[in-house]
Amino acid sequence: MELNEKLLQQVITPRPIESHKGTYGKVVLIGGNEQFGGAIIMSALAAVHSGAGLTTVVTDPNNHVAVHSHLPEAMVGDWTNKETWHSAFEDADVLLIGPGLGTNQQSLALLQFTLTNQTKKQWIVIDGSALTLLATHSLALPYPEQTVLTPHQMEWQRVSGLNLDEQTQEHNQQKQQELGAFLVLKSHQTTIYGPKGNYPNPAGSPAMATGGMGDTLAGMIAGFLAQFPKNEKTISAAVYLHSFIGDQLAKEQYVVLPTQISKEIPKWMHYFSQK
Amino acid sequence: MELNEKLLQQVITPRPIESHKGTYGKVVLIGGNEQFGGAIIMSALAAVHSGAGLTTVVTDPNNHVAVHSHLPEAMVGDWTNKETWHSAFEDADVLLIGPGLGTNQQSLALLQFTLTNQTKKQWIVIDGSALTLLATHSLALPYPEQTVLTPHQMEWQRVSGLNLDEQTQEHNQQKQQELGAFLVLKSHQTTIYGPKGNYPNPAGSPAMATGGMGDTLAGMIAGFLAQFPKNEKTISAAVYLHSFIGDQLAKEQYVVLPTQISKEIPKWMHYFSQK
Amino acid sequence: MELNEKLLQQVITPRPIESHKGTYGKVVLIGGNEQFGGAIIMSALAAVHSGAGLTTVVTDPNNHVAVHSHLPEAMVGDWTNKETWHSAFEDADVLLIGPGLGTNQQSLALLQFTLTNQTKKQWIVIDGSALTLLATHSLALPYPEQTVLTPHQMEWQRVSGLNLDEQTQEHNQQKQQELGAFLVLKSHQTTIYGPKGNYPNPAGSPAMATGGMGDTLAGMIAGFLAQFPKNEKTISAAVYLHSFIGDQLAKEQYVVLPTQISKEIPKWMHYFSQK
Amino acid sequence: MELNEKLLQQVITPRPIESHKGTYGKVVLIGGNEQFGGAIIMSALAAVHSGAGLTTVVTDPNNHVAVHSHLPEAMVGDWTNKETWHSAFEDADVLLIGPGLGTNQQSLALLQFTLTNQTKKQWIVIDGSALTLLATHSLALPYPEQTVLTPHQMEWQRVSGLNLDEQTQEHNQQKQQELGAFLVLKSHQTTIYGPKGNYPNPAGSPAMATGGMGDTLAGMIAGFLAQFPKNEKTISAAVYLHSFIGDQLAKEQYVVLPTQISKEIPKWMHYFSQK
Repeated sequence: MELNEKLLQQVITPRPIESHKGTYGKVVLIGGNEQFGGAIIMSALAAVHSGAGLTTVVTDPNNHVAVHSHLPEAMVGDWTNKETWHSAFEDADVLLIGPGLGTNQQSLALLQFTLTNQTKKQWIVIDGSALTLLATHSLALPYPEQTVLTPHQMEWQRVSGLNLDEQTQEHNQQKQQELGAFLVLKSHQTTIYGPKGNYPNPAGSPAMATGGMGDTLAGMIAGFLAQFPKNEKTISAAVYLHSFIGDQLAKEQYVVLPTQISKEIPKWMHYFSQK
Repeated sequence: MELNEKLLQQVITPRPIESHKGTYGKVVLIGGNEQFGGAIIMSALAAVHSGAGLTTVVTDPNNHVAVHSHLPEAMVGDWTNKETWHSAFEDADVLLIGPGLGTNQQSLALLQFTLTNQTKKQWIVIDGSALTLLATHSLALPYPEQTVLTPHQMEWQRVSGLNLDEQTQEHNQQKQQELGAFLVLKSHQTTIYGPKGNYPNPAGSPAMATGGMGDTLAGMIAGFLAQFPKNEKTISAAVYLHSFIGDQLAKEQYVVLPTQISKEIPKWMHYFSQK
Repeated sequence: MELNEKLLQQVITPRPIESHKGTYGKVVLIGGNEQFGGAIIMSALAAVHSGAGLTTVVTDPNNHVAVHSHLPEAMVGDWTNKETWHSAFEDADVLLIGPGLGTNQQSLALLQFTLTNQTKKQWIVIDGSALTLLATHSLALPYPEQTVLTPHQMEWQRVSGLNLDEQTQEHNQQKQQELGAFLVLKSHQTTIYGPKGNYPNPAGSPAMATGGMGDTLAGMIAGFLAQFPKNEKTISAAVYLHSFIGDQLAKEQYVVLPTQISKEIPKWMHYFSQK
Repeated sequence: MELNEKLLQQVITPRPIESHKGTYGKVVLIGGNEQFGGAIIMSALAAVHSGAGLTTVVTDPNNHVAVHSHLPEAMVGDWTNKETWHSAFEDADVLLIGPGLGTNQQSLALLQFTLTNQTKKQWIVIDGSALTLLATHSLALPYPEQTVLTPHQMEWQRVSGLNLDEQTQEHNQQKQQELGAFLVLKSHQTTIYGPKGNYPNPAGSPAMATGGMGDTLAGMIAGFLAQFPKNEKTISAAVYLHSFIGDQLAKEQYVVLPTQISKEIPKWMHYFSQK
């Protein structure tokens, strides 16, 4: 498999006429503490614009108004309320935990709850501080084959134990095999590691080197998994499209904002679905 | 009657010169609990962009700031305050209840109040969780001939008692006759059922299969009823325009966001008013 | 004087090179209770886009976040805090009171404070519920010749004692003479009454008949008075430009939203300043 | 050195391929009390759009939602919480303090903390009310050669002791030498004073004479210092680009809003990086 426009055409297929919002999956996003509320908002913008059927953001109640200011299309859940956790999670197709989650007791409790309650039909994307918590507390993944880890290099060091200079393709692949989860290792050249091999992302540019870009990517992966076959190809298509759109915007911008990427998703998904 | 562009031309007539905001009706929207505040915001965006003269959103106070961030054009009312209910309702021409309403005691009390206080001059649109409450609590419609129900198929099952596979055109029409209310039954092919027959909506696409699309439709129906003759034709025009705009946007987008539909309404209403 | 494009060219002159934000005046807007916060936001959007040098919104603290979500350019003041009143008012060039003010004790206290503390160098625009309070409590205008009243016909009935069918040009002019304030009487054909005569507004259309249009107009008048000579011509130019922009937008829209008008102001002011 | 397009080409160089958000620096913005929250939002918009890698806004908690409504890309910190101060500051490359800071005890404590904790590797931009506090309390600059002061003429009077009519080029330069900090003295013709001389800004127009323009400039200087060499040239490039963009917008607008400038930054930085 190569990450290119052809892959996008294969994954982003025209939608069936007889379908409804349930057809395109339910995404639950967990993150956004008092300081980092923007992170989960960026993930939600990405998931909704990617075409997830229903999107719920479980976050600190201080962030609810800002979520709705950006995205009335999303539902919100109060992450201090355990009843919310149960009701939000039970119907979910894809869970994304981590953007702006933080690393305190509350964050840890949410991650543990999520991993404990993940069901066989649910996929999970683990990003940001949830990766740090995963490493620090040596938490086990209940369904590694339905799990996507999206660390940047420092987070990968924590999860894998590999120092930055040990993070060779070979070592990373080996660690991926041990963990069993899909790995999206973010750097100036993001690479996807799966059970069958690894796939470097040829797209992307330094114009995308700004805070929140990873939160947007995680939201896109969640949105893609919600509606397309849950596999390596779909994950890879989300990664490539994220960078592809960044590259389009970087033709005219010195820096590309994460929220700008999200707004362009529907147009480019249409483009590749028609080719 | 057929749902087509001609219908839009008939309903969306040029506005009389000697008119003021009162001429175009007062809409009161009731919904939006702590979790689902976005739903009533989307309805309000649709009502205002459809041309309702005055729009008030009676919702959980946690949603007031988000309503105003989207729409300073709307007024807000605190739904925990019974005085608000009275003052907001007494001048209303059209009531819309349900988007994001929830199904707890507060939601039920609001629905009961609304149905009890509806007057002969007011129309009501009942959507979302208000339909579930209507079914669960066997509430009566005071003025069924001035009532529009906008269920999706699962909600219609609750209201009508018809299982999904029993929801044939014939059965639906029969139930509509029993209830006496107008029925907008949402599916991949929405159909309107009225006393004189039923009318399938030929427009719409799977790009519109995303959360909030129904809230937007309900807001458009309310906005249309506020300013145009209160009848089947007007309801049908709102349904068709909603899908028509979705189809225009779907020419360039893989997924169409509900809030994008609302922003396009003034342009397309102008287009059809001039033909 | 006639309200036309020539008037706009006369009033909207090119800005002097040696100037700073203080040159273009300080506007203080007072209004926006818990229900009607959107009204004062719309006035503020209009004042800032009209070119007021500094704009402060004294409003219910519940509205502060929504003000800043629309307009970080504006400062906010808590209207429950009397110290705010003093500090906000002392430097103001133009005061606008009324949009969304409401009519309770707090509203009355604010209006009384404003009228009591108005200085010889300050102009005041009185709109919306402040007009109702003015009439109900028979409040006196300290500087009528520096006062602009912007009632719609029902509010004018309260202020003038003239019933709707008595509001002839002659009667209105007579009342204006008695009151001494400038009168902008809003209807489908708004007319300005001043000491030297009255001037009907030939522009405007029913596409503008939607809630908040008057709040926007009031904000424009305040913004114009802040930076241009404080007289009848400047008031009239604001009234005409408001309708002119509405007419431009109505060429493509069935309904024109007040906030859309505000966004167009800088472009059209530039246009007329260059002619 | 002259402030012109050539300078922009020299400073705004193409980004290295092998880079990440850390490469482009961490900016911490401190300001925004209950009344002036918009000021720090405008600074943050400028810093993020200028390409700062990571941006944190330490502000009154009342402003957090409005920050995120504009800019989910930014992180927020509660300025009433001293732990926040420490954690936010320790990794910062550039500190900006002052926009909307106010002058009460809390404001003073924040400024004192900032000056006390500034490290040898950090630059600081001091703007708005922080300049007033600096003057009133005769605070010392720990690293004047890594400090940028951005007063308007009244603030400069407070800091330098020079009355408006004493603010000649010669006197200003002399005071700059005494203080040792870079000086961006804002007026209708902003001038930069550094150890090697002074540089008038030929760009800018009275369309930019509106509240918040200085907050935007301060944010741009911080964003530029975060990613480009920390020197006089970089400061000057930010000043010139700010006015240059204002001039572009003023070709079509009578008044230019500060937030409009920020949105144009990525496009123009791209333009000059490619020349």
